[in-house]
Amino acid sequence: MYYRIADFNGADTLFNRSCSALWNEVDECLTALKLHVKQSDEAGRQGNLIFNPVGTNQELKDCLGEHDWQYLQLPEAYSFFGLGIDFDKQGAWIEAQFSNYPFLLNNILRAEVLYRDKVSPRGNHRFRGMIVITKAKHFPSSNSTLHFEQAVDHLNGLNRHKLFSVPTRLVGLDVEGDSTQAVLTTYSSPRYSRTVTSARTVRISVERSTRGGSSKFHLLR
Amino acid sequence: MYYRIADFNGADTLFNRSCSALWNEVDECLTALKLHVKQSDEAGRQGNLIFNPVGTNQELKDCLGEHDWQYLQLPEAYSFFGLGIDFDKQGAWIEAQFSNYPFLLNNILRAEVLYRDKVSPRGNHRFRGMIVITKAKHFPSSNSTLHFEQAVDHLNGLNRHKLFSVPTRLVGLDVEGDSTQAVLTTYSSPRYSRTVTSARTVRISVERSTRGGSSKFHLLR
Repeated sequence: MYYRIADFNGADTLFNRSCSALWNEVDECLTALKLHVKQSDEAGRQGNLIFNPVGTNQELKDCLGEHDWQYLQLPEAYSFFGLGIDFDKQGAWIEAQFSNYPFLLNNILRAEVLYRDKVSPRGNHRFRGMIVITKAKHFPSSNSTLHFEQAVDHLNGLNRHKLFSVPTRLVGLDVEGDSTQAVLTTYSSPRYSRTVTSARTVRISVERSTRGGSSKFHLLR
Repeated sequence: MYYRIADFNGADTLFNRSCSALWNEVDECLTALKLHVKQSDEAGRQGNLIFNPVGTNQELKDCLGEHDWQYLQLPEAYSFFGLGIDFDKQGAWIEAQFSNYPFLLNNILRAEVLYRDKVSPRGNHRFRGMIVITKAKHFPSSNSTLHFEQAVDHLNGLNRHKLFSVPTRLVGLDVEGDSTQAVLTTYSSPRYSRTVTSARTVRISVERSTRGGSSKFHLLR
């Protein structure tokens, strides 16, 4: 999958040099990642194809898991910030953040507090830097979910006043061109189920908005 | 209603001295506020009485509105942080935060950025300090919604590293004793509707957990 990146607090140096082997694994999984879509069940847009976070998370988990990236439970003393970090390997953290936009600042600030507290949740590997995976603004998706451009604005806002120091690489999943292969998944109940009823590879066209809004994804038969 | 407070970054001085008239209005509305409850529709706990954020917000809005506290739309340049502040008067802001816990750090950090940017969204009143209204941990409520004790932990974590400087008063709505008057409201559809079907004043008992978990609210007939 095509993606863009934005680096903060020296993440370019970190992931291009001392953590470059770790980044190469992430890049491999991102590049192999397919666009996952599902049919919306939100009022007024039922049936429209939208970005599918559940399928995306699952494929990322499968690929990163093969490279031994693992879920990291936060120490009990920090559990008020949420339960854990999506993926950790040797002190590099990944959050796949396709949820409501306020989760971003929770992810960033809890990382900042652990970073400054010099916490080592797993063995000897002190926390070194973070990758946050988001989706492009133009992807049709559930209301109020975080997108890459918004995340860049958030982190620029914090950065202007030195409110975070964790080396952070933002990834924005995107598509190039007018059409792409995708995986269309249906679930046993529309909103909350993760039980797959069917998953098939399809080809979709990407109809871009001329006014900076959402694209439309159309199934090509 | 009974409530607790926790002050950060000099909020005690701000709200006891230069903004004491504003705080007195807030205190009046908090003291007059009734406990609002509704029946849960979450799986496994249908029908149990839980805290009702919609009713609480409405009563706060009615009371604060009488004192000319108004919704404050964020300037367009900050809209990526969310649309607006629940209540503003003369540069004092109030957020009633009963939603998912990540909203707290979004509220705090966007306020911090505007504070440091010295933005004056409404006329000549520069932003001076914030009040965040939450509910007690022991209140039975929707999953993953913010509570006072958790908010105190969040802000202590940020404060340890000087990650925010806005004078901030946290309010934790609570009940004293074993029973209290409450307003029981039903809505036209269980989860998302704000259309009131019925609202009646009831008396409920508060059965405290012995293990630090949620209390149970029981209807007294």
